[in-house]
Amino acid sequence: MQVRTLDRSECIRLLSVNRLGRLACSLDGQPYVVPIHFAYADNSLYAFSLLGRKIDYMRSNPKVSMLVEEHGPRRAWKSVVVDGRFEELPDRVGHKHDRDHAWSLLSRHAAWWEPGALKPVIPPMSDHATHVFFRIVIDRLSGREANEDD
Amino acid sequence: MQVRTLDRSECIRLLSVNRLGRLACSLDGQPYVVPIHFAYADNSLYAFSLLGRKIDYMRSNPKVSMLVEEHGPRRAWKSVVVDGRFEELPDRVGHKHDRDHAWSLLSRHAAWWEPGALKPVIPPMSDHATHVFFRIVIDRLSGREANEDD
Repeated sequence: MQVRTLDRSECIRLLSVNRLGRLACSLDGQPYVVPIHFAYADNSLYAFSLLGRKIDYMRSNPKVSMLVEEHGPRRAWKSVVVDGRFEELPDRVGHKHDRDHAWSLLSRHAAWWEPGALKPVIPPMSDHATHVFFRIVIDRLSGREANEDD
Repeated sequence: MQVRTLDRSECIRLLSVNRLGRLACSLDGQPYVVPIHFAYADNSLYAFSLLGRKIDYMRSNPKVSMLVEEHGPRRAWKSVVVDGRFEELPDRVGHKHDRDHAWSLLSRHAAWWEPGALKPVIPPMSDHATHVFFRIVIDRLSGREANEDD
């Protein structure tokens, strides 16, 4: 295998075309990693979640890491790791447009799912209000690509 | 989707039959998540890694989280999250058997790869000595399974 580093624009492209990532947060030195769906826009990753351990952790410690991978043919792969900061976007005027836009992007994705989010169909407005809406603001990106040797 | 909790034996089965996980560690409140290959045995997940950020983090803070997923037909999925502790297994008498056994298990896996580990073939003994060998001792397990509604 030959491994090379992705530049920033290649990292952003990978974040833009993928929806599934693995999000790690930590509290008092204990990390916690879960799968999550997201949508990239404006140097941030937007996502929804029901209340639970990861929201508790991120409200206490906003530093997170997000891993996004792409697997190609012949064992080729790309991966990007984001160091970022959790920002909750309450359901108030000012965030309503962002919230509806992100919900629309994520709901449209055929494989939309998340442990704890039980309704993989486009929900009525009243339903997404029960989810915490947040973004991960990207502080640092690193990416790698591997291809089989010729 | 219908979601249910996996019991301990179902979690162990999922860890036993899978080799790819996502490992999260953290240092000074900053989490870091990467893909990694592992082999389950004796309440632990065994793995190798080249030196780098994750080994630096885990040597300073041994608390980690490992996510293992299985994706089935019709959007079904299972996932297990492990809370565990990093233990480095130096290349000395006493760990040699474990080390060779884990290397053998991981090398045999057709899709063996890891960012930073560049040789997906069974390497000579001298080669795997350059990798850090470690295990994640499992402290806590939680698992979920989702299936489409009938």
